[in-house]
Amino acid sequence: MAESMSGLARTHRCTEVSSQMTGEEVTVMGWVQKRRNLGSLIFIDLRDRSGLLQLVFDEESLSSEDYEKANGLRSEYVIAAVGTVQKRSAAVNENLKTGDIEIKVHTLRVLSESDTPPFPIDADQTVKDELRLKYRYLDLRRPNLQRNLRIRDHVTRIIRNFLSDEGFIEIETPILGKSTPEGARDYLVPSRVHPGSFYGLPQSPQLYKQLLMCSGFDRYYQIAKCFRDEDLRADRQPEFTQADMELSFVDVDDVIDINERLMQKVFKEVLDVDIPLPMQRLTYQEAMDRFGSDKPDTRFGMELVNVSDTVSGCDFMVFKGALEHGGSVRGINAKGLGDLGRKKIDGFVSYAKDFGAKGLAYIQLKTDGTVKSSFAKFMKEDEMEALIKAMDGQPGDLLLFAADQDKVVFDVLGNLRIHIAKQYDMIDESLFNFLWVTDFPLLEWSEEQNRYTAMHHPFTMPFEEDLEFIDTDPGKVRAKAYDIVLNGTELGGGSIRIHQNDIQEKMFEVLGFTKEDAYERFGFLLDAFKFGVPPHAGLAYGLDRLVMWLTGEDSIRDVIAFPKVKDASCLMTQAPGTVDEIQLDELGIEISKSGEES
Amino acid sequence: MAESMSGLARTHRCTEVSSQMTGEEVTVMGWVQKRRNLGSLIFIDLRDRSGLLQLVFDEESLSSEDYEKANGLRSEYVIAAVGTVQKRSAAVNENLKTGDIEIKVHTLRVLSESDTPPFPIDADQTVKDELRLKYRYLDLRRPNLQRNLRIRDHVTRIIRNFLSDEGFIEIETPILGKSTPEGARDYLVPSRVHPGSFYGLPQSPQLYKQLLMCSGFDRYYQIAKCFRDEDLRADRQPEFTQADMELSFVDVDDVIDINERLMQKVFKEVLDVDIPLPMQRLTYQEAMDRFGSDKPDTRFGMELVNVSDTVSGCDFMVFKGALEHGGSVRGINAKGLGDLGRKKIDGFVSYAKDFGAKGLAYIQLKTDGTVKSSFAKFMKEDEMEALIKAMDGQPGDLLLFAADQDKVVFDVLGNLRIHIAKQYDMIDESLFNFLWVTDFPLLEWSEEQNRYTAMHHPFTMPFEEDLEFIDTDPGKVRAKAYDIVLNGTELGGGSIRIHQNDIQEKMFEVLGFTKEDAYERFGFLLDAFKFGVPPHAGLAYGLDRLVMWLTGEDSIRDVIAFPKVKDASCLMTQAPGTVDEIQLDELGIEISKSGEES
Repeated sequence: MAESMSGLARTHRCTEVSSQMTGEEVTVMGWVQKRRNLGSLIFIDLRDRSGLLQLVFDEESLSSEDYEKANGLRSEYVIAAVGTVQKRSAAVNENLKTGDIEIKVHTLRVLSESDTPPFPIDADQTVKDELRLKYRYLDLRRPNLQRNLRIRDHVTRIIRNFLSDEGFIEIETPILGKSTPEGARDYLVPSRVHPGSFYGLPQSPQLYKQLLMCSGFDRYYQIAKCFRDEDLRADRQPEFTQADMELSFVDVDDVIDINERLMQKVFKEVLDVDIPLPMQRLTYQEAMDRFGSDKPDTRFGMELVNVSDTVSGCDFMVFKGALEHGGSVRGINAKGLGDLGRKKIDGFVSYAKDFGAKGLAYIQLKTDGTVKSSFAKFMKEDEMEALIKAMDGQPGDLLLFAADQDKVVFDVLGNLRIHIAKQYDMIDESLFNFLWVTDFPLLEWSEEQNRYTAMHHPFTMPFEEDLEFIDTDPGKVRAKAYDIVLNGTELGGGSIRIHQNDIQEKMFEVLGFTKEDAYERFGFLLDAFKFGVPPHAGLAYGLDRLVMWLTGEDSIRDVIAFPKVKDASCLMTQAPGTVDEIQLDELGIEISKSGEES
Repeated sequence: MAESMSGLARTHRCTEVSSQMTGEEVTVMGWVQKRRNLGSLIFIDLRDRSGLLQLVFDEESLSSEDYEKANGLRSEYVIAAVGTVQKRSAAVNENLKTGDIEIKVHTLRVLSESDTPPFPIDADQTVKDELRLKYRYLDLRRPNLQRNLRIRDHVTRIIRNFLSDEGFIEIETPILGKSTPEGARDYLVPSRVHPGSFYGLPQSPQLYKQLLMCSGFDRYYQIAKCFRDEDLRADRQPEFTQADMELSFVDVDDVIDINERLMQKVFKEVLDVDIPLPMQRLTYQEAMDRFGSDKPDTRFGMELVNVSDTVSGCDFMVFKGALEHGGSVRGINAKGLGDLGRKKIDGFVSYAKDFGAKGLAYIQLKTDGTVKSSFAKFMKEDEMEALIKAMDGQPGDLLLFAADQDKVVFDVLGNLRIHIAKQYDMIDESLFNFLWVTDFPLLEWSEEQNRYTAMHHPFTMPFEEDLEFIDTDPGKVRAKAYDIVLNGTELGGGSIRIHQNDIQEKMFEVLGFTKEDAYERFGFLLDAFKFGVPPHAGLAYGLDRLVMWLTGEDSIRDVIAFPKVKDASCLMTQAPGTVDEIQLDELGIEISKSGEES
């Protein structure tokens, strides 16, 4: 029994009505948040995008028909109400923007009724994820999602306007592209016109934006949808959004300068936080050495210390063995945790093992001056003293050591450092520690594929001075790549690109592509590189992750309107779904027997 | 042999250098457009995004090495040049912004060499489409595509900023959605996690934006990628872009008001054209009756005249038969074409036949006062006189008549009218005639499917007062739908949506969907409609088409960076392409035998 709004026009959103308008007639429309009856009065909290406003229906001044209509209102009914602004007769609600006023309604229309929603539409209720996602359209009515998507809109606008002012041009690149598998899996789209052929959905606009630089657009940006058919983790979605840019005739400092000012602007406008510039810069090696991570959280200390030299002469087999096999011994000093019980320390050991450590050596410097250590018996006294000194150990400190190949040591201590800091509240949550990590290795060895793979992607420019090692010691070659990191999270990354055809071909060779392979996949880029390529560079942000930071949300699903769950399905639409046989026939594909059975 | 730009920083783009800077040192970078040698001087036209700038290399003041480097420059080499701004020694070029200056270069770096491009990078050359698209990165260097994509960026920015100022929030909706075939074919994406299931790429964000209204976002917009797997015509692409919006608590006038101001702003800012408001409004019926089209071009007259009553008594079988079978007889008056030769008129007849006419009756009112007609012999003299009078026929006019079912008559005369106007230059190209067509039929009969189909889409609100006919005479029901038309092209369209579950279910019934069908496809929308839906409405523009108008291009391919051709392939990347067997195995699909053979 939906009434029409015809003849009525909304004059204000709920919180646009104020006490300065006392006596004026307004027309408001929205959802019933709550109804309360109080004697001959009915109170309605009306909700729209802007917030809440109290409506009051008075039995004495309303027709009995209208009063009954008001009395029939339930949560989530959509109504239009015309009435007069008045100061609240009852207690003022300090928590509401419109807490000192109400609308005395003389005309009510019920525009849409509502079943009882499966969960209440307010901020505080915890609702099961499955239910929230099935009824996403109701979940989206709740204040935090309303706020998150408005912040997302705001962030996107700031980015667009800033980049536009800096001379960037937004250019749309195709979604239906060529599948060029390297790295993650592509989503494929079968072609109807060319049966047996497929489009690939882009994992990023990388190749297109480099072509746009070849085309002389000089500065490109795009808020771009990207796709990866990977098994989802909590912070992944099959489709995600990048704030993507590419610039010509620039070097690393230019890219960093623009992006520092961009982030400064975003955080100022959205959170009113001042980010000091320039941001700190760490080389990859420095980041690993000091924090055991290429996305270090610098809001607290507990930096890694390399004690390999200090322990090089000792007889402790764990240390000795690691050093003999080309590894290292490094420690962290967990200040103030020297008196922890054995159980807590065992917890750290077990955590470290999850990251590949065979064990974790420790020295407890108790506040009472005693020292307890898992390995003191293998060490001479002066060796222990030297080690404690190297770690700046004071009474009350807990020293933790890992000894293994560098990769393992960094992984263990880098993670343990954060684990401990979180567990013992060592992180100042008010800080926004931005930094750049630069000079990444160009390549990393993939045990799985038994070859070097590109650490960023195959188009990243090596350091010219390292090129001499590219055949003899590829792992040593550094790349002109940079990541921007906030409080231990990578917000974005990019690189100077190879703009020389010979270096690009060399790069493909090192990656183990035959010339035919490379041409099959990236031929159009290699062709383009024959016709005059400007030096160029770029960077892309994970927009979803940036918005997570700005909204303070822990889940990527809370900053996306219609997200998917872990199995890449949408609980609201039931996508993906089956399709008609005729659709498949037209595409020239069929479902594998084995596929049907699995 | 690419040199590095390291140590150099671009100080200006080409056309940022001006004669006020005479004597200053600048560093510019870009592409070699042209080289000319003149005695001991070498002139280079340097091109970047901003335009052209002349460089001069003087053998007398350069090292012989540098001079030789300059002498080796070819078209499309990318260079960096450092030098001093000076007034031109030779003739000033009035056509160039920098035509009165040049840079006397003292340092040159060749950043990238170039093969001879397959076509020259300048405005005037006509190049075969296939070649342009294969080397799209070179084509995009040409001035008109540079300009088109910058205009596209500008238009998009105007739309975003305008809508944001009007309280719209941009919200991204999914690309990997549910396939809901109705109308065009969906592109499908096989799911790896759910073998045998498929995502559908959205033909528009229609359902999502209606859900966002259910969620109370009040005003949504998105520059949205949409996909249709249809056979392409010249003005179609498999993926295209909509400027899409949806509003709550509004009626037709609100939508029209916002969009009139939006278009006014776009045309003012991009073309400096003043669009007077309000725009003309025509009902669908009026548009058909007067122009034979639901997207009338009103830049010229030649309107249709219904002469059915005038000829109702005559014996001319063509007229008589049409009227007896429920059709009509209508004419247009092609002013000034009364003296055309027989061959020209035969051309019109043949054109009309392409649109389904069995013939075309005509009366030539020659300037010498004689009358020639294809059917005068079947008419009485007073009948002819009455007919000429009804058509306002004057000496020098050519009257053309179609007699058939309305649908055919409108199609024939509507198209013929434009054909003639174009052929005889009757269109004032300086006009921008915007108008709205409203009150469309809700449904149209599909011979092919032997059922009524939605003229806009199944969510369009019928006129309440017409609902009584929905079972007895569905074709008579009007819809609250509106199109915005510019000079005979539909730029966008939309409607008030059904927000009442009962009307929505009725609509599906009329469209021949069983309740199960409807729930299978749109269940989540019908579910959402149970929980309080605001009255809402929306509109979407074809952004590509809008940009075509603003750039004056005839082809949609000239306003898209990387377009596809008629068979939906990309000539540059060769997408779609074959993929590895292992990829298909993972997706649980295989290529049909028949598909492979075809």
